[in-house]
Amino acid sequence: MVRTRTSARSKPAIKSRAKSAAGMQHAYAVILAGGSGTRFWPASRRRKPKQFLAVGSDERSLLRQAWERLDGVVPVERRIVVCAKAHARLVRAALPELRPTNLLLEPAARNTLPAVVLALRAIAARDPHAVACVLPSDHAIGSEDAFRASLHAALCHAQGDDALVVFGVPPDHPATGYGWIELGDATARLDGARFHKVARFVEKPPLALARRFFAGGRHAWNSGMFAFGVESFLAAVARHAPQVAAGIRAPRVSATSWRALPSISIDHGVMEHHDDVVVLPVEWSWNDVGAWPALAALVQADSAGNRASGRAKLVAEDARGNLVHADEDALVALVGVEDLVVVRSGRCLLVCRKDRAQDVRRIVERLASEAPEEA
Amino acid sequence: MVRTRTSARSKPAIKSRAKSAAGMQHAYAVILAGGSGTRFWPASRRRKPKQFLAVGSDERSLLRQAWERLDGVVPVERRIVVCAKAHARLVRAALPELRPTNLLLEPAARNTLPAVVLALRAIAARDPHAVACVLPSDHAIGSEDAFRASLHAALCHAQGDDALVVFGVPPDHPATGYGWIELGDATARLDGARFHKVARFVEKPPLALARRFFAGGRHAWNSGMFAFGVESFLAAVARHAPQVAAGIRAPRVSATSWRALPSISIDHGVMEHHDDVVVLPVEWSWNDVGAWPALAALVQADSAGNRASGRAKLVAEDARGNLVHADEDALVALVGVEDLVVVRSGRCLLVCRKDRAQDVRRIVERLASEAPEEA
Repeated sequence: MVRTRTSARSKPAIKSRAKSAAGMQHAYAVILAGGSGTRFWPASRRRKPKQFLAVGSDERSLLRQAWERLDGVVPVERRIVVCAKAHARLVRAALPELRPTNLLLEPAARNTLPAVVLALRAIAARDPHAVACVLPSDHAIGSEDAFRASLHAALCHAQGDDALVVFGVPPDHPATGYGWIELGDATARLDGARFHKVARFVEKPPLALARRFFAGGRHAWNSGMFAFGVESFLAAVARHAPQVAAGIRAPRVSATSWRALPSISIDHGVMEHHDDVVVLPVEWSWNDVGAWPALAALVQADSAGNRASGRAKLVAEDARGNLVHADEDALVALVGVEDLVVVRSGRCLLVCRKDRAQDVRRIVERLASEAPEEA
Repeated sequence: MVRTRTSARSKPAIKSRAKSAAGMQHAYAVILAGGSGTRFWPASRRRKPKQFLAVGSDERSLLRQAWERLDGVVPVERRIVVCAKAHARLVRAALPELRPTNLLLEPAARNTLPAVVLALRAIAARDPHAVACVLPSDHAIGSEDAFRASLHAALCHAQGDDALVVFGVPPDHPATGYGWIELGDATARLDGARFHKVARFVEKPPLALARRFFAGGRHAWNSGMFAFGVESFLAAVARHAPQVAAGIRAPRVSATSWRALPSISIDHGVMEHHDDVVVLPVEWSWNDVGAWPALAALVQADSAGNRASGRAKLVAEDARGNLVHADEDALVALVGVEDLVVVRSGRCLLVCRKDRAQDVRRIVERLASEAPEEA
């Protein structure tokens, strides 16, 4: 899907107060922890989705990493987490510092936009001048310091400007599975961060187009991370997704009303339709940890290209290019095998060819009927 | 190694009492449970060798199967088990009916002949007319009824004849890793069992020779199972392995004397040198369970040739010819992989190409230095 933005307005300069540290007292964060999924079976399950896993070489869960990444930018009492009711206990265990009133529960999955609006209603009720960043809880980010600098710059931008900010990640290959953002004119520079108008969003382009984007150097990946003034964003929701705005008027919504909401993402519901969106191309590496092979970028390989994630200890004998993961201490011995993903979790074990990792969902589908307790 | 027997004596007919059930009151069994080995890592360890594993589709350990295979032929009180000191507790747990005085402990591994002589000294002290069978504890046998019939016939033969009996297994391929026995003239028929003189033993023949043996139909595999009169065998030991006979004069031997014994097998120490050995070609299938791929013969394959052994439940998605084993309940999911051995045991996991199963020992060698608690 390609949407060209034709109505880019000219912008006033960023207000100077945005750069002062005192201005950050209105900064809030929304962590979206409502994800579910089957691509990380058997480590992730319906009862324990990806954001609760410690993958790669970090001993912290992805959710915990997302939480600590905010340290020094957004204080604990201004961090809101939205998750499925079924996962409230896991969130509380991962984030003991989370204020009980800052945990919002979704009665059912409705994609990201309703979750964000729910959180923003809670923030708006406390602080009419609030700015907020919206962050997924299941991505991995290379440099925390560089991330904090970007986050700080984007929140500052949001304090002085109505534009919605999306973080644009530098692409490292012509990905067809991501959303791409074409960078328009530069708009502002803040704390060394350069903001650009969004010329257009392109969701999951065909390979030929992705190759052009990648070669051209004027595109970034849509990271799914955003920053904006809360009132600015809620006004955009009222305009582009009125059903969501009307269905969530307060931080509390009945389960019945919630279920009546459309299931829609921030991108499809608001960003792609709004005319005042800027992109902040960032420097840090980003990994959406989409399936097991994505872990390869998060752990060092041995001399034969084998990688051990989580708590797996690897012993390889004439084995190459394999990725092993265990969520408890485990010794994984490989003999004569290549390009496999091997995962041990609880009483389940997965051995999968790397290029078939997408088919793990078929296993989960079969288990859902044959052995539902393992799905 | 090829030894041709030149001194086959002519034999008297089997004494008629051998066929009576009353005659079986002198029948004893020696179960050799002293094996150790690394080819079944990680399920087997130094602390828990193969005979203590439940592999294939039988829920009983191989040792327990060997024990119960004697039911109806040799009563419990006449079964002797020889094992390493370190494994006494495992044996007692597997065989609660075993009389405490019938468990003999080896202070160190000295191959099979010293272990057998130790057991035979204990038997001879109780019953000067005893006959005994010697059975490994880590082989799998297809038909227990057919096995019992062979065992009964061989013990009867031993009661009436000084010849040492070896059970010869019908070969199903030209194996180069086994001992072969060339059948000589038929000597006796008992309970429908036909005994033959052993013309010669050939240990691990080259492939061309193994092919000739296999095609010729006059060879059997040496099963490592024997039956004989106890005094006959001890006399043969005194003659062919006098150091062993002299070193073990009673069922109790000091650790120092034991360690001074040569490490030697029944075959090399006695059978291959003795001139009065007969072979009983049997009908039952036999599997020495030499390494993981050998389990394939013990479990049914699914339509794609995948096999699950032990307590593994298998879910295969476009996977072929794999063998999975788990010694505790485990769900093993395979996606897009072929001809692998996958084993889960405790906190260890093995993924090995089937044709590389012999290299599992390399993993164990490395662990012995890097992580000795897992070897």
